[in-house]
Amino acid sequence: MMISTALVFIMHLGFATVEAGFGQAKNTVNILFKNTLTPIIGLVTFYLIGFSLMYPRTAEPGFFFGFDGFFPQMNEGDQTFAYTSGAYTRWTDFLFQAMFAATAATIVSGAVAERIKLSAYLIFTLIFVGLVYPIVGSWKWGTGWLDALGFYDFAGSTLVHSVGGWGALAGIIVLGPRIGKYVDGKVVDKPGSSVPLAVIGVFLLWLGWFGFNGGSVLSGDPEAVSLVLVTTSLAACTGGLGAMFTALFMFNRLDLGMVLNGILAGLVGITAGADVISPNYALLVGFIAGILVVLSAVALDKFHLDDVVGAVSVHLTCGVWGTLAVGIFGFKAITNDNGEFINAAGNVVSTAAEAANALSFSSQLIGVAACGATAFISAFAIFIVLKYTVGIRVSAEHERQGMDSHEHGIRGYTIIYDE
Amino acid sequence: MMISTALVFIMHLGFATVEAGFGQAKNTVNILFKNTLTPIIGLVTFYLIGFSLMYPRTAEPGFFFGFDGFFPQMNEGDQTFAYTSGAYTRWTDFLFQAMFAATAATIVSGAVAERIKLSAYLIFTLIFVGLVYPIVGSWKWGTGWLDALGFYDFAGSTLVHSVGGWGALAGIIVLGPRIGKYVDGKVVDKPGSSVPLAVIGVFLLWLGWFGFNGGSVLSGDPEAVSLVLVTTSLAACTGGLGAMFTALFMFNRLDLGMVLNGILAGLVGITAGADVISPNYALLVGFIAGILVVLSAVALDKFHLDDVVGAVSVHLTCGVWGTLAVGIFGFKAITNDNGEFINAAGNVVSTAAEAANALSFSSQLIGVAACGATAFISAFAIFIVLKYTVGIRVSAEHERQGMDSHEHGIRGYTIIYDE
Amino acid sequence: MMISTALVFIMHLGFATVEAGFGQAKNTVNILFKNTLTPIIGLVTFYLIGFSLMYPRTAEPGFFFGFDGFFPQMNEGDQTFAYTSGAYTRWTDFLFQAMFAATAATIVSGAVAERIKLSAYLIFTLIFVGLVYPIVGSWKWGTGWLDALGFYDFAGSTLVHSVGGWGALAGIIVLGPRIGKYVDGKVVDKPGSSVPLAVIGVFLLWLGWFGFNGGSVLSGDPEAVSLVLVTTSLAACTGGLGAMFTALFMFNRLDLGMVLNGILAGLVGITAGADVISPNYALLVGFIAGILVVLSAVALDKFHLDDVVGAVSVHLTCGVWGTLAVGIFGFKAITNDNGEFINAAGNVVSTAAEAANALSFSSQLIGVAACGATAFISAFAIFIVLKYTVGIRVSAEHERQGMDSHEHGIRGYTIIYDE
Repeated sequence: MMISTALVFIMHLGFATVEAGFGQAKNTVNILFKNTLTPIIGLVTFYLIGFSLMYPRTAEPGFFFGFDGFFPQMNEGDQTFAYTSGAYTRWTDFLFQAMFAATAATIVSGAVAERIKLSAYLIFTLIFVGLVYPIVGSWKWGTGWLDALGFYDFAGSTLVHSVGGWGALAGIIVLGPRIGKYVDGKVVDKPGSSVPLAVIGVFLLWLGWFGFNGGSVLSGDPEAVSLVLVTTSLAACTGGLGAMFTALFMFNRLDLGMVLNGILAGLVGITAGADVISPNYALLVGFIAGILVVLSAVALDKFHLDDVVGAVSVHLTCGVWGTLAVGIFGFKAITNDNGEFINAAGNVVSTAAEAANALSFSSQLIGVAACGATAFISAFAIFIVLKYTVGIRVSAEHERQGMDSHEHGIRGYTIIYDE
Repeated sequence: MMISTALVFIMHLGFATVEAGFGQAKNTVNILFKNTLTPIIGLVTFYLIGFSLMYPRTAEPGFFFGFDGFFPQMNEGDQTFAYTSGAYTRWTDFLFQAMFAATAATIVSGAVAERIKLSAYLIFTLIFVGLVYPIVGSWKWGTGWLDALGFYDFAGSTLVHSVGGWGALAGIIVLGPRIGKYVDGKVVDKPGSSVPLAVIGVFLLWLGWFGFNGGSVLSGDPEAVSLVLVTTSLAACTGGLGAMFTALFMFNRLDLGMVLNGILAGLVGITAGADVISPNYALLVGFIAGILVVLSAVALDKFHLDDVVGAVSVHLTCGVWGTLAVGIFGFKAITNDNGEFINAAGNVVSTAAEAANALSFSSQLIGVAACGATAFISAFAIFIVLKYTVGIRVSAEHERQGMDSHEHGIRGYTIIYDE
Repeated sequence: MMISTALVFIMHLGFATVEAGFGQAKNTVNILFKNTLTPIIGLVTFYLIGFSLMYPRTAEPGFFFGFDGFFPQMNEGDQTFAYTSGAYTRWTDFLFQAMFAATAATIVSGAVAERIKLSAYLIFTLIFVGLVYPIVGSWKWGTGWLDALGFYDFAGSTLVHSVGGWGALAGIIVLGPRIGKYVDGKVVDKPGSSVPLAVIGVFLLWLGWFGFNGGSVLSGDPEAVSLVLVTTSLAACTGGLGAMFTALFMFNRLDLGMVLNGILAGLVGITAGADVISPNYALLVGFIAGILVVLSAVALDKFHLDDVVGAVSVHLTCGVWGTLAVGIFGFKAITNDNGEFINAAGNVVSTAAEAANALSFSSQLIGVAACGATAFISAFAIFIVLKYTVGIRVSAEHERQGMDSHEHGIRGYTIIYDE
């Protein structure tokens, strides 16, 4: 778990480098500033309030809303020595979940880059990570009503990725596209500053996913974790392949950006069911995610929804797909109170395979809809309020000249040899 | 083991950044495309066929060829719940070995960069990872005939690195050098796009080697693993020093590129015997590897064999050296069936040191030759067939202008501030 | 522990990228050369002599100086099989501590960059890592006199960071500022080559700190380690925030460089007491460190002390602060020989909280002063001797034109598309 926490932490560097790589050089510092502040705000906010909202031990299972009070509550009076024993400590749990929480906000940052006011973004992050994410998350992972319903989301295709993705979609709708992105009905390419940075980011995210999904087993059980790592990796691979072939077919080009987003799409897609989907089906779930991420990106451009890094396509589209895929391909072994395998009829059987039950497609659909509606409406409302108060968009002049020179006073790259 | 798998995974990012750093800016996207696809193809291919070829449980120990059928075969019927119990699960083993397999192909990619057709490279990778690597590997790690012979290769100086290196050598022979690399008998320098990227890559590879060698202990035994990490690190250090001094002596320059390749040389060199060579000898094995990598690079240039990143010198030359070094410096404790230490005479002794036996130089030589011949001839044959079918080299115009603009339509770096 | 070792190793890549990112493009290769050689020299030196100086098992507790002889001494005669059993092996301990040792030298490298002679730096590193660092370190971690005094330094705010920081201060005093850094009493900005590289570095350092602090628990005790990771992370966050607000207030700018150094400041600050300071106080310790790092950087510039990356402010100023903070906020549970908790009166109590005792401010002060004086005077003496023997500063011409073209013959970045 603690190793997984370190791996999930490194995802924040992954997001930072992906976004800096895909963003234009004139906005590099601004993008990095956002991505550096996001885990900071995420961690502190989750410490102050989020954790107690997401895992309220005082609420009855099946609740809609629970809150334990500010700061993570420990068993004993003193923070230094207090802990919950078990397979992992409550502090480990806090840190692992805090890293997840910040992920949801980071997803938004990539979509709204290159024109959002930094202050507006930071306030949004504060509210989104502090309130929206943990309340939605508590419905499932805090043993709330979606959990009682049988909704299944192993490591957050819905709770983390689609929640972030819905926030990103709300953001780009309220913000509008970058100046010069859509001209005369055509999409204008805005080349990113560094493809190597983007590749570094995607590999670090893949690495982080080993922690994201592997750690979500919430134990060191080697059987479960090893299967999860295999399904996760295979889906990443076929996600990349699916996107490569789709882009080759549609654009007649070996599109590295699409392959990279395809890998992420496969990872997001398998996240909901990494432990209940077989490796063969993981290949399929990933491949379809890779196709969807390209189609989704094209569709968004059709509606002039300008998503700088493709965050909505990766995290929302494939987060929804992955969650529904659990209802199609997912099987879960059922055990009784003694830990013995039982089949659907309730009889004790000897192997997990005999005890496997399909997961419910309709529960998955309800979960997707409920979390999606809540996240989207909340994010939309926050952005609208910010728009008419502090403002959410930089001036056209700042946007054209780049945000680095105006808001930060330095350039992302200074590669000069002649003095 | 699972942590090691994550570390070995990150080696693929290491290779990607080393190659992008050492390669010219006009080919950055192409290089990264190859390096992103390599682990993808490697993993999927190893899943479909390679693992069953490399670890055929149905073959008698000492075999030449074995095959379990497509897909990794598990103990039970259903993939989701099936596993092999023991110190690690069969899924962990699969993923760890799949990461290794893809490494062999990645080694080739660095050597043949900047002029190979992407399609030819991808087909080569498919065959090399799917068939050549696992068959050669099965001879030792799958308990085949080299294992029966007493050949020792702890973590793959021969099975992974020299196999990849022979493939790279075959590739650069068939391809020929880049245009303008050798002019009037002189070697023309082609500066890489980013030295920082190359440094990132080498450090990530070193990190990954902790997993590569540490994980090859195949258990969490802290004594064995900690010794392996020490020998690995010390050899990396003296590899860097050996290359630094050699380059300083030969070129009168503090050559960072050579230091970086020297570190990798030391790592490759110690890989075959990281668990049976003492730390003091590890210093020596690494230092010699560092000298050899520089001499080898100079020798290749003499024969107009153009290796963009020095992959042949690092992985082939030092892979061979490391494997033979086991026959010179390697000692291994012998135990009887009860796990007691026994000396060469068969008497029970109390310490591992008394039970230590030298490993055989001639077995090492046979292993090096057999694996080398198989890998080189196979790779040469594949490249020749590709040359006369799909073609293996891009047009001279594409090569001169860079492959990024032609095959991918984007540039690796777009650092512009004036609109 | 072994995983922590891998994480601490990656800190060296973090330092390399931070320094390459903050340094000017014309010196990138030189900076990377130094940072690549530093862990190499550090490891080899620590193997040859440092480890035996730092952990002399033959010296009586409370000693001033002890030495076990060259090479790490193992229990048995043969290195390959010898180890010390317990929670971790002696080889693991060696490697973990060797990574720390090299860290102290790396801190110096960032401050003295862009004008120091490579040879002088390498000789300094050899002596500093081989002699100064282990002797100072032995006073506490080797159970020397500071340990007997009750001085507390969990993971090295003083022993690693401030020791490195004092070395850096000595270096920049003896060297003098870069040409053109202070003109007519004004500070001239020298923009670094790549902000993304610097961000990569800081995130990798943060990641490495999980190992640095987490591994310093010297056991896998999940309660202790998880608390340490939480305090470490929270201090990093508020360090970044403290620096951001201070810089915003003083310079009226969202200064990413300061935020990054603030994160490091928070990490350095919490390092001395990560296991004995509660999460709430960790927030405070980090925040104050973030303020201090900005004030310190401004103060150094006032005295024309030119520190390229802010190493003195981060590691010395905040290392001292963090060590003293232990004497203010630190509480430690006391146990008797049976492992039962006892309170100050010596009575057995049931919880760690009841057994908590404040740590001594005066012991902390003595430790800070003793280690500081020793490190500074030693480093100053080494640099002075080097100045009047091999020389420590490159020629003004080399400095102006950049060290890469003169000492290494290559450029850090070659991003050219038109041939």
